[in-house]
Amino acid sequence: MRILGVDPGTIVLGYGLIESNQDDMVLVEHGAVRCNARFDMPERLLFLYDEFSSVARKLAPDVMAVETPFFGENAKSALAIGKAQAIVLLVAAQNRIPVYEYAPRQIKQHVADYGASSKEQIQEMVKMLLDLDEVPQPSDAADALAVAICHLRESSLRDLISMSG
Amino acid sequence: MRILGVDPGTIVLGYGLIESNQDDMVLVEHGAVRCNARFDMPERLLFLYDEFSSVARKLAPDVMAVETPFFGENAKSALAIGKAQAIVLLVAAQNRIPVYEYAPRQIKQHVADYGASSKEQIQEMVKMLLDLDEVPQPSDAADALAVAICHLRESSLRDLISMSG
Repeated sequence: MRILGVDPGTIVLGYGLIESNQDDMVLVEHGAVRCNARFDMPERLLFLYDEFSSVARKLAPDVMAVETPFFGENAKSALAIGKAQAIVLLVAAQNRIPVYEYAPRQIKQHVADYGASSKEQIQEMVKMLLDLDEVPQPSDAADALAVAICHLRESSLRDLISMSG
Repeated sequence: MRILGVDPGTIVLGYGLIESNQDDMVLVEHGAVRCNARFDMPERLLFLYDEFSSVARKLAPDVMAVETPFFGENAKSALAIGKAQAIVLLVAAQNRIPVYEYAPRQIKQHVADYGASSKEQIQEMVKMLLDLDEVPQPSDAADALAVAICHLRESSLRDLISMSG
C-alpha cells in the first residue's frame, strides 16, 4: 500500500510517501510545496492546487492521510490550514484517492505512543521508524510522514479488530 | 461592473450577480449550489468546485465578493465554511477574477447601515435595494446578494475617498 501523508499549510505544504508490505514500511519520496508568502490567498490556493495536483498524479498513492487543523488556540491559523486542507481534499476527490483525516493528538499517539510528545520527538520517531540516517527535511515533510505512519498503524489496528471480530 | 456575491457553505453555497452603472444596480441572476449532505467532505468539495466553476464561467463577473467565516462562536462550522471559501477563492484565481472578502459585520453595516441587524432585516434590505417584489430565494442567495451590494458600496466609498484625496 502506498500512503501519501500531507501536512497542509498555505505557505508550506509538506508531503511524504511511504510504501508498506505487511509489517515493513519504507520511505519512497518526500518534499514540500512552497508558496510565495507575498502572494494573496487566492493566488496561493491556485499555486497549491496546481503543484499538489502534479504531486498526487506523479506519486499515485493508494490512499492519502491528512492532518486536520488543530483549533482552540488560534482560530485564524486554523482557518488558513483549513483552506490548504480543502485543496488537498479536492485533489484527492478529483483523482479518486480515498483520504483520511487525523488530529494532531492521534498522530502523536500512533507515532510516539504518547499524545503529548513534542514536534521534535515525533520527527525523531519518523527517522527511527523509517530507518533513516537523519530527520527528513524540511520538517513539514517529516510531519507529513508522521501522518502517513499514523494511517498505516490505524488501518493495521482496524484490520486486527475486524479479524478478531 | 458585474459583481458576483457568494455566501459559501459546504452544504449550500448561495450566489447572486448584480450589475451596477454608477448609482444604479440591478439583479441579474441568483441561485444556490446544493450538495448532498450525505456526501463526505472530499466529495462535497469536488461537487462545489465543479458546479461553482460552471457558475463563474457562465456569469463571467468582473469581480467576486465573498463572506468570510465568522469565528469565535463555533470553530467547527467556521472551518467548514473556510473550506467552501477556499474553493471559491481557487475558482476566482483560476478564472483571473479579483476577489474581495467581507466580514459579516461589514456586510451588515454597508447593507443596513447598522452592524447588529438581523439576517431577516438584511434580506429585506436586499429586496428593497434591488427593487424586488420578494426576498430572493433561497435565503443563501439573498445573503450572497448582500455581499455583492456590500462590495459595490465599499468600492464606491473607496472611489470617493481617492477622488477627494
